[in-house]
Amino acid sequence: MSKGITKREENFSEWYQDVIKAADLAEHAEVKGSMIIKPYGYAIWENFQRILDEKIKATGAKNTYFPLLIPESYISREKEHIEGFSPELAVVTHAGGKKLDEPLVIRPTSETIINAAFSRWINSWRDLPYMINQWANIVRWEMRPRLFLRTTEFLWQEGHTAHISEEAAEEESLKILNDVYKSFAEDFMAIPVVVGEKSKSEKFAGALRTYTIEALAQDGKAIQMGTSHNLGQNFAKVFDIKYKDEENNDKYVWQTSWGVSTRLVGGLIMVHSDDKGLVVPPKVAPIHVVLIPVWKDESNKDRIIKKAMEVKKSISGLKVEFDDRENETIGNKFFEWEKKGVPVRIEIGEKELKSGKAILVRRDNGEKQEIEFSKIPEELPRILDCIQNALLKKASDFKKDNTYEAENYDDFKKFIKQGGLVYADWCGDENCEAEIKSETKATVRCIPFENQEPKTGKCVKCGGNAKYRVIFARGY
Amino acid sequence: MSKGITKREENFSEWYQDVIKAADLAEHAEVKGSMIIKPYGYAIWENFQRILDEKIKATGAKNTYFPLLIPESYISREKEHIEGFSPELAVVTHAGGKKLDEPLVIRPTSETIINAAFSRWINSWRDLPYMINQWANIVRWEMRPRLFLRTTEFLWQEGHTAHISEEAAEEESLKILNDVYKSFAEDFMAIPVVVGEKSKSEKFAGALRTYTIEALAQDGKAIQMGTSHNLGQNFAKVFDIKYKDEENNDKYVWQTSWGVSTRLVGGLIMVHSDDKGLVVPPKVAPIHVVLIPVWKDESNKDRIIKKAMEVKKSISGLKVEFDDRENETIGNKFFEWEKKGVPVRIEIGEKELKSGKAILVRRDNGEKQEIEFSKIPEELPRILDCIQNALLKKASDFKKDNTYEAENYDDFKKFIKQGGLVYADWCGDENCEAEIKSETKATVRCIPFENQEPKTGKCVKCGGNAKYRVIFARGY
Repeated sequence: MSKGITKREENFSEWYQDVIKAADLAEHAEVKGSMIIKPYGYAIWENFQRILDEKIKATGAKNTYFPLLIPESYISREKEHIEGFSPELAVVTHAGGKKLDEPLVIRPTSETIINAAFSRWINSWRDLPYMINQWANIVRWEMRPRLFLRTTEFLWQEGHTAHISEEAAEEESLKILNDVYKSFAEDFMAIPVVVGEKSKSEKFAGALRTYTIEALAQDGKAIQMGTSHNLGQNFAKVFDIKYKDEENNDKYVWQTSWGVSTRLVGGLIMVHSDDKGLVVPPKVAPIHVVLIPVWKDESNKDRIIKKAMEVKKSISGLKVEFDDRENETIGNKFFEWEKKGVPVRIEIGEKELKSGKAILVRRDNGEKQEIEFSKIPEELPRILDCIQNALLKKASDFKKDNTYEAENYDDFKKFIKQGGLVYADWCGDENCEAEIKSETKATVRCIPFENQEPKTGKCVKCGGNAKYRVIFARGY
Repeated sequence: MSKGITKREENFSEWYQDVIKAADLAEHAEVKGSMIIKPYGYAIWENFQRILDEKIKATGAKNTYFPLLIPESYISREKEHIEGFSPELAVVTHAGGKKLDEPLVIRPTSETIINAAFSRWINSWRDLPYMINQWANIVRWEMRPRLFLRTTEFLWQEGHTAHISEEAAEEESLKILNDVYKSFAEDFMAIPVVVGEKSKSEKFAGALRTYTIEALAQDGKAIQMGTSHNLGQNFAKVFDIKYKDEENNDKYVWQTSWGVSTRLVGGLIMVHSDDKGLVVPPKVAPIHVVLIPVWKDESNKDRIIKKAMEVKKSISGLKVEFDDRENETIGNKFFEWEKKGVPVRIEIGEKELKSGKAILVRRDNGEKQEIEFSKIPEELPRILDCIQNALLKKASDFKKDNTYEAENYDDFKKFIKQGGLVYADWCGDENCEAEIKSETKATVRCIPFENQEPKTGKCVKCGGNAKYRVIFARGY
């Protein structure tokens, strides 16, 4: 059944590419690292967007659109920011038939151009909090591209907010992390995540602190699914974003920024899919149910199609694909929708016509059941809920089974090699972090919010006093 | 009441900018010709997107995403295409810290990169029609920028389709023009449009024929609101997009492409707004109703706010803004929402509390009426419909009153100078067209589908035999 898809255990990386191809989600484009998102892949992204957009608007942020092209001098203003992004920039030097006086960079993120506007727009404490979001394309030159996970151009949303106090900015960055990103990952994508803070070496260029949600792929590598930054006053000072407080004093604002991208689609694939192809949780699925009439020949074709169409019409509130194509075999149809990860398949043939019961097959576990035609409309939502919950449980169990506690460096290396999330004490020193990375390819995925009771342990690497208990893993 | 907004009759161009500023829709950004779309302006665009996206999907086209960056050699493949776009291109020469082997252009439109993909994806007659759409940002270097109407970067949707025959492509291009674009302009934006074909000099670079919808601004200039192109086989031949027909012969596909952009927001402003600010038709309005409790002091404040809140809660299915800000005067509140063009304002104060009737004010004509609190929920949709229809009628009347028939060149010049759409016979010669343009600044807006009975007239310019009866106007 899995012709054309490499098995996960044989070669996870090839399996990933095969699933994308089999489900017809996306392909590499001409320019190295760039990607064409095909209709079925884009439909998944549109579902993500719709749900996230609603959640983001519910926090009070409003959508805007800022320019793609940023004067090079803007990017350079914040020192850490330019150091972080400089190697990844795409630069426009000519336009309108002429060499430009000042080169323009294609936004690698929009902090600089947005904060230049904030300095014009924000004047009084009454303007705060100022919260905006935009859905946009981003370019960061990518040397090791991988569809969805690392592409030179990607689509994302980026939120940017300004606040009256450090506490308010901190609260905002955590609210987005928990109420928007974590909740979206778990409640819609059925992906359990760890929330925590990035180490200094992994934080956003220009931020005070970066918070992250991290998921675990089936090969035991971690995937950063979204980040939320407390920017402190770094950009406010560089772009002079001041407001008058109630006593008419000039104050710098406190800021956050936060984003998730098309990388989420890569996460979806890596967490849920199997050797048969894509698996999509019902709550983000472009198609919930595929309904396939199965006829032998002209003698029963019309009757079967008629009944199947009746069943289709009885279902409301769900996206149902009706596959009565003439030029495909039933086997190929089953195969195709399986590869695309449609949560439920319903078959109606001669036998079903007689019994009054359709065959229903779950994509997540392959279970078949018979179900009376009349009960399909009310049973489907329940079955889709079951699938959604089963996927979250499966992913949660996998994560639990592949989470380790390393008390010494030998265990640590063993666990990392095996794959998974490895908790270990760390002194907080960047040299230890760098040595661990060069020896094991593992990075600090995050300093999780949970599990941070006062540390008495020793750094897994140097044996010095531990400052944090962190999660290490190899990552995408 | 119109402090800060230049009157239309004084200076239409300044009025336009003032309305955008007064309604807080957008502003110029750092890079010449680029634009920041602010929350209220973007909310209008989001409404456009939502409605158009639904209409486009209903035609069978599916959303996708293609890369921003296109190899320069792609753009050059279709001869007319590169000639048309070459002066407007922005070119990336450096990326990832290096000079690129081949420069990349930022898409000025995506025909080339999409058709390169079509040549891989389309193989059989069974794949046709192949219909996709994308929402994307576009860059065309702009020397005379004007917010929304002409910006270096703009947002748009671009549809691209491939068909089995010339007739099928023609049908598609006209279906989009009429069922999607014209219907959206008239039924949602309340803007009457003329549909027709562009002259050869005004058609899309690379198309066989370009169809357009043209609206009339209040200063008598035409605005191109959307175009749909029958591409024939021009791109199919250059990009080798072939399919096997039912007899297994290789055939080139026939194609269309079509787009509308953030320019539509400019059209909305120029057609409906007035000296008091923006006017937004209810069907595309981010806010339908602003509800303003009007209290004198603490003695009646709570009672009035409570009643107003009750009224707000009784309204469903509409976007209602509740303005109980403490730090703004009532006058400023009225003024602000008027500038933003919110269709209906409801005031509830002490007098209204006593009478049980709120005051309702229409933005389009300033009419005030009293309306019983309990009747507000059922009356509001009816009133919004009235406003929608009134705006369409007003714009239709204006268009009718400013449409002329010129039978000689003196009249023609007079009408053009006056402003409006001028019907005139034309021989079809590009020299006549160019002379008319240089003498009057008027261009052929379109050869309208209507009014094309066999021509016996003479060209308004050269007196030669007329080939078409066309609409001339100065345009944006």
